[in-house]
Amino acid sequence: MIDICAMKHKTAVLPELPNGDNLLPGLSVDCVIFGFHDGQLKLLLLQLKNNHIHALPGGFVQKNENLDDAAARVLKERTGLENIYLEQFYTFGDVQRRNNKTQKEIFKKMGIGLSDDHWLQKRFVTVGYYALVDFSNVIPVADELSDSCGWYELRKVPALMYDHNAIADKALKTLQLMLDHKLVGFNLLPEKFTMNELQQLYETILSVKLTRANFQRKILAMNILERIEKKMEGGAHKAPYLYRFSRKNYLQYLKKQQ
Amino acid sequence: MIDICAMKHKTAVLPELPNGDNLLPGLSVDCVIFGFHDGQLKLLLLQLKNNHIHALPGGFVQKNENLDDAAARVLKERTGLENIYLEQFYTFGDVQRRNNKTQKEIFKKMGIGLSDDHWLQKRFVTVGYYALVDFSNVIPVADELSDSCGWYELRKVPALMYDHNAIADKALKTLQLMLDHKLVGFNLLPEKFTMNELQQLYETILSVKLTRANFQRKILAMNILERIEKKMEGGAHKAPYLYRFSRKNYLQYLKKQQ
Repeated sequence: MIDICAMKHKTAVLPELPNGDNLLPGLSVDCVIFGFHDGQLKLLLLQLKNNHIHALPGGFVQKNENLDDAAARVLKERTGLENIYLEQFYTFGDVQRRNNKTQKEIFKKMGIGLSDDHWLQKRFVTVGYYALVDFSNVIPVADELSDSCGWYELRKVPALMYDHNAIADKALKTLQLMLDHKLVGFNLLPEKFTMNELQQLYETILSVKLTRANFQRKILAMNILERIEKKMEGGAHKAPYLYRFSRKNYLQYLKKQQ
Repeated sequence: MIDICAMKHKTAVLPELPNGDNLLPGLSVDCVIFGFHDGQLKLLLLQLKNNHIHALPGGFVQKNENLDDAAARVLKERTGLENIYLEQFYTFGDVQRRNNKTQKEIFKKMGIGLSDDHWLQKRFVTVGYYALVDFSNVIPVADELSDSCGWYELRKVPALMYDHNAIADKALKTLQLMLDHKLVGFNLLPEKFTMNELQQLYETILSVKLTRANFQRKILAMNILERIEKKMEGGAHKAPYLYRFSRKNYLQYLKKQQ
């Protein structure tokens, strides 16, 4: 009896790898999940079990699953969130993007022996998606291969597995481009926000200082915000207005852009 | 002897499929190749052998080949051109993007029987690239599976194989976005061009009419053009100026944008 209990315990501790038979061979998805908190842009990262290395949340594509659905599934598994702003931005397919020897060592530390002909040791092309989430709604969940899942300041992102640092950099560049073009930044804010919070978000993503008056004029001219009420803090005369993003006006704005 | 000759002839006519063993499974690249001629934006398309259907030039990724290199190889095979503006824009991975039955019929008309377990009948995810080429430099070359390779007006693109019409649409949307952001349009013009030709290019890609004075002011303010000489046609006083794109100034322009 004691032996069986010990075995059960060991089985529970050892992470299980998915069976590759039901997956598209050599293809993965990786999600760069951006959140905004305390004036900082943050990334959701996994810390790999028994390793000092971190990784982007990612996964594989089931044989009967659309590529985009696989990314949405990974996002839901790590954040609990559905119907989130999630956009494919680039596919990474260099021969050298992963190192088989390093991967073997990472899995060895987790207690998993990878044989050279294991499906995970084949060449993988990965499709990058970026997600913009309201930080306050997320309860990060680690996966089978990780000790923890949590937020890291974008400026202090640690060394990541494979080419994940390059993937995160490319996602940020896409976010910067799309900020002006599709105004995607609102997905990073809670429903109600002050003009100051919105400006801080833009400044952080673009890594620039903006003039308060100019920023406010530019944003209000787009006619995509509803002003709702004053934020209740300090004296009422000092309280800043709260704004809400208007989806209806946004659609009109996008039409005008075209 | 006669029999052998006939067999040789038959072998030469029947297109050969590549051997799948040396290729990444389930992954392809497709190139949306844009050219500009006679005030029209054009697409380079293949007409499939013994079929009425057309297709984007595409191919597969060799096991030891970077994804981007595979796209550059396809581009070179179809156009003879190297070092061309070629950019990945989206990866198409819906389960239903190809229809196996239709594909079997297409290949049957070419004289190729595809068994149900043939590697080409598996699910494929395809990575889309768009290329911008100077129309006058291209000598289109058909591939093994095609009767011809040629230019088609973007507004009159015929029905394409698989989801290739959707891939071409997405490429155009990306080109429109990048026209302002990275000024990629110059890749579609010969080395020297008039302001009028440049305006025509912008109008065609964006599907809008632009005011001559405004367009000229906006473009010249970017400081990315060198004015060189007058085009020799009609009376000298009527001849328009020729311009050349300045790569040096362009790099400065991109820096300022960031």
